[in-house]
Amino acid sequence: MPFTRLTPDLLARFRALVDEKGSFVAREDMEKYASDETEDLVFWPELVLRPTTAEEVAAILRLAHESNVPVTPRGAGTGLSGGALPVEGGICLCLERMNRILEIDTDNLMAVVEPGVITEAFQNEVEKLGLFYPPDPASRGSCMLGGNVAHNSGGPRAVKYGVTKDWVYGLQAVLPTGEIIETGGKLIKNVTGYNLTQLLVGSEGTLAVVTRITVKLTPLPKYTRLLLAPFDSPEAAARAISSFFQHKIIPTALEYLERAAVEAAERRLGRTYPVPPCAALTLIALDGNDPATLDRDVERVGELCIEGGAADVFLADTPEKQRDIWQIRRSTGEAVKSISIYKEEDTVVPRARLPELVRLIWAVTKKYGITAISYGHAGDGNLHCNILKMDMSDERWERDLPVAIAEIFRGVVALGGTISGEHGVGWVQRPYIGIAKSEVELALLRRIKAAFDPRGILNPSKIF
Amino acid sequence: MPFTRLTPDLLARFRALVDEKGSFVAREDMEKYASDETEDLVFWPELVLRPTTAEEVAAILRLAHESNVPVTPRGAGTGLSGGALPVEGGICLCLERMNRILEIDTDNLMAVVEPGVITEAFQNEVEKLGLFYPPDPASRGSCMLGGNVAHNSGGPRAVKYGVTKDWVYGLQAVLPTGEIIETGGKLIKNVTGYNLTQLLVGSEGTLAVVTRITVKLTPLPKYTRLLLAPFDSPEAAARAISSFFQHKIIPTALEYLERAAVEAAERRLGRTYPVPPCAALTLIALDGNDPATLDRDVERVGELCIEGGAADVFLADTPEKQRDIWQIRRSTGEAVKSISIYKEEDTVVPRARLPELVRLIWAVTKKYGITAISYGHAGDGNLHCNILKMDMSDERWERDLPVAIAEIFRGVVALGGTISGEHGVGWVQRPYIGIAKSEVELALLRRIKAAFDPRGILNPSKIF
Repeated sequence: MPFTRLTPDLLARFRALVDEKGSFVAREDMEKYASDETEDLVFWPELVLRPTTAEEVAAILRLAHESNVPVTPRGAGTGLSGGALPVEGGICLCLERMNRILEIDTDNLMAVVEPGVITEAFQNEVEKLGLFYPPDPASRGSCMLGGNVAHNSGGPRAVKYGVTKDWVYGLQAVLPTGEIIETGGKLIKNVTGYNLTQLLVGSEGTLAVVTRITVKLTPLPKYTRLLLAPFDSPEAAARAISSFFQHKIIPTALEYLERAAVEAAERRLGRTYPVPPCAALTLIALDGNDPATLDRDVERVGELCIEGGAADVFLADTPEKQRDIWQIRRSTGEAVKSISIYKEEDTVVPRARLPELVRLIWAVTKKYGITAISYGHAGDGNLHCNILKMDMSDERWERDLPVAIAEIFRGVVALGGTISGEHGVGWVQRPYIGIAKSEVELALLRRIKAAFDPRGILNPSKIF
Repeated sequence: MPFTRLTPDLLARFRALVDEKGSFVAREDMEKYASDETEDLVFWPELVLRPTTAEEVAAILRLAHESNVPVTPRGAGTGLSGGALPVEGGICLCLERMNRILEIDTDNLMAVVEPGVITEAFQNEVEKLGLFYPPDPASRGSCMLGGNVAHNSGGPRAVKYGVTKDWVYGLQAVLPTGEIIETGGKLIKNVTGYNLTQLLVGSEGTLAVVTRITVKLTPLPKYTRLLLAPFDSPEAAARAISSFFQHKIIPTALEYLERAAVEAAERRLGRTYPVPPCAALTLIALDGNDPATLDRDVERVGELCIEGGAADVFLADTPEKQRDIWQIRRSTGEAVKSISIYKEEDTVVPRARLPELVRLIWAVTKKYGITAISYGHAGDGNLHCNILKMDMSDERWERDLPVAIAEIFRGVVALGGTISGEHGVGWVQRPYIGIAKSEVELALLRRIKAAFDPRGILNPSKIF
């Protein structure tokens, strides 16, 4: 059944559900809600609603369900797979005004937040208490915790600390039919009915709208170190990385950048990494509470890098030096994407297979005459491959690119990997989901979707 | 629609799907499959099938789905909520012969196992390589990893290391309709379709039959310490425990035993804890790789215990002393349950609310004239409350007990907790699920169940 378009009557009924700051219909007000950080895609909503309570969200979804109007939830719009784009029109349901940190519970090491809290703002608050919320997507200065939950966001520190799902213990969420549910709580152990918390994390806003999040915290590590080690091949870098784990050292982060990614960021910021040019630059972060133990690990990691063929090892031992290097690292995505029209693939394989992934991308892009720049999280086998249009004709871009991407993804799956590590499938990877999931699996996902959303009004046309 | 009983023809068709050692129908062969470790409950299956491959499991479920025969999956039968009991008759599908460790991948720190592997046997294998699989249910010497996945098993080390869900990254599973699916993989990051891995963990064998499990490993900590601290009230013990976290020390395990639990275990083993009698005994385990740092934490924890009112602190610093104490601790459940006919409740609340939970149980059991002995995992707020029948009349046991349990559970939920931390809802807690979940939530769980199992043949009458 086709979705209902918003008539003036429906528009008024929806607008009446929120306060006067809670809705936008003017084109200029809606512009920022028509796109996210995904390529150059633009889809206009018919109405933007910005509720402030779960009850308002429930009323909106109840009416949307009754009237068959599509609803696309949105946080900060920093997503990279088009998950927040209202591709079927209808309502953009933005949670940006639900931005309170409700509680930081130092006895239970848990916090309760609303979905519109900026990730870094939350991290700063808990760090004031000597606590730590580790997930650190590159966009943490602007992205929101609700979006992190929707996409199961990761970031560099996933090597040691895992991703968003590993820190979320409870949710309040509104079903597409308008009922409010509560899942989990401040409970490390809980086996009482199916784990809906974990089903909702990473469901890209297609099953329910999250209105409150309970996350676990941990003590903030007192000391951090950062090493830079340049290698002359991805194989050499990956061998050195494997050797850390074999020596029972789990770094906080293990980043990998190929030369063009290093150069793009250096050019953009007008600053350089303090190491000579190389084919495969690695950043190795470590943390701990005992400086002597930490420095012993740092020394061992340095030795293993040299044994593994690193040309040199640079240690950033002060917070300032570390911040400077992370700043260059974090600007990589923006820098690479500013070069040209692009498509970004968020490939992920088992960590030890990273060199094979790099070779695969080189082979496929060479075959199709495509320019690509890759960088990412070597510790997780998560490589962001940015395919740049450069001077390729529109015709070839339209024709060859989907074929090349499918070839990369089939190779990724053959390596035991999958098509998205931390960006989500959303709108842009949807054509490729069949490479990662069988027909049986897709049919099961659709039945789960229908169990939550019988009319399919919530974030339609995403994932599958 | 009522389930189909196994006619001689159906029995023969099912038996033909497995090898000659793969089925039991004789009463003496089926006896051990008619009960688990839950109270004194006995439910006979009509047929026991013991497949050796996922394909055999698929063939069995396909035929069961077609012919509408109930199937109850089973591991080692060590469950405490009746999850493995074939309460509707039909087939007991026991995974005990699928017991191979398929791979221990030291580069990716992942292992792949079949569901019938004994948890402790697996732990011993990975520890030979200096690696660690932390979840340690009390039954780890006999329970199986498949059962751990089904119940999201915990154990003492959950304080620092989490529970089974935190270590499972991929599954192969067979749907009740007979198709094989694969979820996740050796991937720390993965947001490609809904997280079916996490939906299946803790689903108590009601959604699919797990036939292969991919788990994460971590380096084995080199050093462990164990402290015993006796307190004169649960409040004093809980205050001391909170103070560890406020001092940024995360112990490996934090156990709590009330006096009767201590005495029951001591009597049964004919050995005693090396501390004077007390109202609230705590066991505090710590681990680490640097002995100096670890001993500093041990000293701090000892001081915090004394400051918090502990009569004394005993340090078990050798592996032998620690093993002896853990042996007494682990025998507690068996010891308490040997006293009388019993019912065990697996209550869980946010850690800091443990004293309120203890007082709640005391108040309710006093009100109904019931004997109860509680012990458990203070670091997780997970208290196992064993209600003993003693000389209570059958009539009062039948009449008052459900009322008292419901009262405890309502109190637990009011404290922000839930009705099962690590045992599952299964068969015995099913009457109480409505205390923890709303009608809307239960209806959603049922729709998810139907999305996997349209005829409801897999582990029927469990959870809800």
